[in-house]
Amino acid sequence: MVGIIMGSDSDLPIMKQAAEILDEFGIEYELTIVSAHRTPERMFDYAKTARNRGLKVIIAGAGGAAHLPGMVASITSLPVIGVPIKSSNSIEGWDSILSILQMPNGIPVATVALNAAKNAGILAARMIGSFDEEVGKRVGIYNVTMQKAVEEKISLVKKDYPNKFDS
Amino acid sequence: MVGIIMGSDSDLPIMKQAAEILDEFGIEYELTIVSAHRTPERMFDYAKTARNRGLKVIIAGAGGAAHLPGMVASITSLPVIGVPIKSSNSIEGWDSILSILQMPNGIPVATVALNAAKNAGILAARMIGSFDEEVGKRVGIYNVTMQKAVEEKISLVKKDYPNKFDS
Amino acid sequence: MVGIIMGSDSDLPIMKQAAEILDEFGIEYELTIVSAHRTPERMFDYAKTARNRGLKVIIAGAGGAAHLPGMVASITSLPVIGVPIKSSNSIEGWDSILSILQMPNGIPVATVALNAAKNAGILAARMIGSFDEEVGKRVGIYNVTMQKAVEEKISLVKKDYPNKFDS
Amino acid sequence: MVGIIMGSDSDLPIMKQAAEILDEFGIEYELTIVSAHRTPERMFDYAKTARNRGLKVIIAGAGGAAHLPGMVASITSLPVIGVPIKSSNSIEGWDSILSILQMPNGIPVATVALNAAKNAGILAARMIGSFDEEVGKRVGIYNVTMQKAVEEKISLVKKDYPNKFDS
Amino acid sequence: MVGIIMGSDSDLPIMKQAAEILDEFGIEYELTIVSAHRTPERMFDYAKTARNRGLKVIIAGAGGAAHLPGMVASITSLPVIGVPIKSSNSIEGWDSILSILQMPNGIPVATVALNAAKNAGILAARMIGSFDEEVGKRVGIYNVTMQKAVEEKISLVKKDYPNKFDS
Amino acid sequence: MVGIIMGSDSDLPIMKQAAEILDEFGIEYELTIVSAHRTPERMFDYAKTARNRGLKVIIAGAGGAAHLPGMVASITSLPVIGVPIKSSNSIEGWDSILSILQMPNGIPVATVALNAAKNAGILAARMIGSFDEEVGKRVGIYNVTMQKAVEEKISLVKKDYPNKFDS
Amino acid sequence: MVGIIMGSDSDLPIMKQAAEILDEFGIEYELTIVSAHRTPERMFDYAKTARNRGLKVIIAGAGGAAHLPGMVASITSLPVIGVPIKSSNSIEGWDSILSILQMPNGIPVATVALNAAKNAGILAARMIGSFDEEVGKRVGIYNVTMQKAVEEKISLVKKDYPNKFDS
Amino acid sequence: MVGIIMGSDSDLPIMKQAAEILDEFGIEYELTIVSAHRTPERMFDYAKTARNRGLKVIIAGAGGAAHLPGMVASITSLPVIGVPIKSSNSIEGWDSILSILQMPNGIPVATVALNAAKNAGILAARMIGSFDEEVGKRVGIYNVTMQKAVEEKISLVKKDYPNKFDS
Repeated sequence: MVGIIMGSDSDLPIMKQAAEILDEFGIEYELTIVSAHRTPERMFDYAKTARNRGLKVIIAGAGGAAHLPGMVASITSLPVIGVPIKSSNSIEGWDSILSILQMPNGIPVATVALNAAKNAGILAARMIGSFDEEVGKRVGIYNVTMQKAVEEKISLVKKDYPNKFDS
Repeated sequence: MVGIIMGSDSDLPIMKQAAEILDEFGIEYELTIVSAHRTPERMFDYAKTARNRGLKVIIAGAGGAAHLPGMVASITSLPVIGVPIKSSNSIEGWDSILSILQMPNGIPVATVALNAAKNAGILAARMIGSFDEEVGKRVGIYNVTMQKAVEEKISLVKKDYPNKFDS
Repeated sequence: MVGIIMGSDSDLPIMKQAAEILDEFGIEYELTIVSAHRTPERMFDYAKTARNRGLKVIIAGAGGAAHLPGMVASITSLPVIGVPIKSSNSIEGWDSILSILQMPNGIPVATVALNAAKNAGILAARMIGSFDEEVGKRVGIYNVTMQKAVEEKISLVKKDYPNKFDS
Repeated sequence: MVGIIMGSDSDLPIMKQAAEILDEFGIEYELTIVSAHRTPERMFDYAKTARNRGLKVIIAGAGGAAHLPGMVASITSLPVIGVPIKSSNSIEGWDSILSILQMPNGIPVATVALNAAKNAGILAARMIGSFDEEVGKRVGIYNVTMQKAVEEKISLVKKDYPNKFDS
Repeated sequence: MVGIIMGSDSDLPIMKQAAEILDEFGIEYELTIVSAHRTPERMFDYAKTARNRGLKVIIAGAGGAAHLPGMVASITSLPVIGVPIKSSNSIEGWDSILSILQMPNGIPVATVALNAAKNAGILAARMIGSFDEEVGKRVGIYNVTMQKAVEEKISLVKKDYPNKFDS
Repeated sequence: MVGIIMGSDSDLPIMKQAAEILDEFGIEYELTIVSAHRTPERMFDYAKTARNRGLKVIIAGAGGAAHLPGMVASITSLPVIGVPIKSSNSIEGWDSILSILQMPNGIPVATVALNAAKNAGILAARMIGSFDEEVGKRVGIYNVTMQKAVEEKISLVKKDYPNKFDS
Repeated sequence: MVGIIMGSDSDLPIMKQAAEILDEFGIEYELTIVSAHRTPERMFDYAKTARNRGLKVIIAGAGGAAHLPGMVASITSLPVIGVPIKSSNSIEGWDSILSILQMPNGIPVATVALNAAKNAGILAARMIGSFDEEVGKRVGIYNVTMQKAVEEKISLVKKDYPNKFDS
Repeated sequence: MVGIIMGSDSDLPIMKQAAEILDEFGIEYELTIVSAHRTPERMFDYAKTARNRGLKVIIAGAGGAAHLPGMVASITSLPVIGVPIKSSNSIEGWDSILSILQMPNGIPVATVALNAAKNAGILAARMIGSFDEEVGKRVGIYNVTMQKAVEEKISLVKKDYPNKFDS
């Protein structure tokens, strides 16, 4: 099971994309709000009990001075995926990215691109898929599906532009 | 009393400058290491008990993804001064600055310049000096002393360069 | 009493948030325009008389090459909170932040996040609350209220998403 | 087993730290050079065969326009951890970080801090430890050891500075 | 013949400007989608066969962690022009620029300005025009035409503003 | 007389603000388009003849890789004021600023803030006003007028907010 | 006469380059220390009396949150040239540059490149040379001298490398 | 023939790497100093005569506000490769990169990585190699040689680290 947490309900439009892609992969998850700054004790409890509640990965999204992913990573021994969010109080996302990425030695956070909650979900699926063969296969199929979507677009573009490569 | 904390003993050469200036102002302090990421529970205890132990201000220094000042501010209701440190794992200090400065609404951190632990100490003295007349006076005297130090340098420079303003 | 000043009336929509939160905390304030560049003498007078007029903290907001907070801090011995404002002539706010934050040794400015006038008000309340027990309590209560607001949102999100942690 | 690859042998002083920490955790690994730009076919072969050769995670380090982690992630369905390296031709590390972090939807790379190969190793251990109980325990013990190392430093600092918190 | 490729059909509104300007210069081209991350094998095939299919230059546009231009350059020995695109997932274009520009020694990419697909087309025309006299002349004429367009605007502006230089 | 030039007519909405303020100061000017890149010979002629045509200052505005101000400064010995413009092809204005500001030793450009054509006009007036007493007085009066405009706004704000300083 | 001021004597090694080049041009100057933050009243007096003391231009250098040039410009109506200094407490010079450059409408500062005190002196000479024919000529001669220095280097390089252009 | 030019002899240690690699490819070149700012007329002459003197490509290196590549490109219709140089007066190379890269529509510069004069030479070889079969082959061989150099290093690393991939 994957835990999806975020610092504020204003992050939900981004973070629910992690949930949606996990649904696609048939991976169970739970999703809730855990604010490092407004509910620090809840954050401690969440991180402390995560492993025993059966979580395999935690996805944590936050914006601005984004402490949630790093703090959760410091309390649990599970892998934590951090999603930097370009929230309204963020400086072009740089604060969110650097606050999540630049963790000190000993406490890594697996950071994905700005607002890339979908990729966080796929990364969680890849982690699980390394040990769960069924999920691993689905990730492989997902990659093929992406490739096919590109190929369809190639065909469309080919109607309007010369293309000797695909002839 | 002022609490001075830092994420690592490698921050001590910077952070002890806060202690030294508080000594100059005759303000009591305590100084120790509290790592948000390596000793998260110690951080909680420190912040939770701070007010009752008689602290009036907390100065917290950290580098990289610097979560200590913001997390302490989220647990205590005391004013927290954050000192961004350009540690060896920092990207020119930008990560330290943004992780401390860009706190969300509700949980401010009083951020000072990069590596400016001395200014953190002076800021603490100013905060105390608003309510403690004796300390307030010392801050005023400190400003006059700085001014005099500049005046001495003006005299020295005047020996080598024309200066009609001070004639 | 807290002094709230800003470089231009165009900063008022941001800076009035400091006034509003001080109202919530029951802390007296005065609010006016003081431009470092257009009314430099007014700035001097304001800063010089601040302590004697009973101010305990000054909150100063400015954008672009934001000199107001630092200049006021150089004239008074009160603690000065600087609010960098992303004004229309600002480069994504970087100029405002760096002009306020990077003060030289001896003259600190307590910088808060970009546009974070509300946090400036809360920081002022924390400073006062270190010495005024009543205000200190209100800050504590404010933190609990924020926590409760998060909890309500947790309940709302729980209706739409699985959540074993809160079960 | 973990695969550790890097774009150049000049990255080895950084990247071997991933190997060393995996040794500490008792996790098997292989380490070699795979250059996206100088040996693109080798990169393809490496990534294509990775899963079948028994790898569970790939750690890829590169500097400048760092394409190795992202390209490997696009060919395999394993989780890929990217280590941005501040190589001699890098602009303060920004190019390395952004080239690895900002992957498009569908192909995530788990990015760690600049030069943080050690953290990449720990992150791999956490991923494996979610499914291998023995490794999971070791990560937990590692965290406790870090905490104890901090505590020793606290004792040392206590000799030189007042500290009422730990009294 | 010039090859124009891009990572996604969402790049087409920008990249078709390269096609349009090549049309103006009477230079043949082919245009298609080649995604480094979603169709890595197609990218290999495209780059490998490019020279033999008669291409003289390849123009490759991509956004975010933009690996397409650099990867294609590592497989072909043709000159590759990279167009950094400020796509929706890009951080103000910095990621696209740095991922394309900062190639390691041995594998250059001729990078043009952000979104400057038109300039990429002109650059390709200049490359061809160094060896094909007819095309070289057309580039010269193009420059004169640009100059004339400016001169017309000079006349328009002159109606509204004093101008002794052109009198 | 002041020369106002710009790289493109798209810069006119910004650059005409320099003309307007010079009108206010009663300073003669000429305004035209001179493109460093599209009309390089015109630029040479303009700069070469500037002094003899009676110009005292040149104001040059340009965006992106903004070479006009620096190139003009390298051909004339007049003071050149550079206005970095945040044009549509600019990266948040950083390219315009750095291309104008960072001139090598020997060839200065007096750079003003991003889009600050109005300030360029005022700066030209200050330069002229150092030698033309009448213009010097008008700049002094302008400063007083700005101050009075602030004072009016102070009165307006005073209706809505407490203000002991101005009582 | 030109006024050269700087925030601290640590800026002297940079700022004396302005004095040296003015000596070369035979332009009188005065040089002293004026700290915006440590001697704010001195700064006021300096700026207020500048015009009457016969100054035609003021060159002001400062680092970090560099307020001196902008504050002086707000008090005098003389042209002020700002020299951003990469002092020890500066973040790669960005803070110095932005604090000086990004002045609000009404109060321009003529900013030169980072550490470019020499260029500030040349810019002052250009301003004076627009009205003082003798100085104007010297600036013209200076440009020719620079050109000749380059030509000598061209000859030297020609000994080691093929060069058909100068044959 | 390739033209290699640079703004100053201080750029020679970087720029001679372009000459060296062209020597390796057996491509003729000429190398000299052409300063956009100190010898603007020389720059004009150089660019104007370039095509007729038989040049096929121009490589231009410059630092700081680097105008040479763009100005040369605006005068010639040859392809111009720009090498941003991190000179002593450059801000971490950002000014050099942006001044060269961000050229307006109509006048492209083929920008390579910071200090990457060697890559500029290889890019020139690729451009020539598209039309000169012999040179084209040499570029192909060069790529194979690079690959072999990597393979040797792979063997060396294999002595110290486990490597199942190459077994």
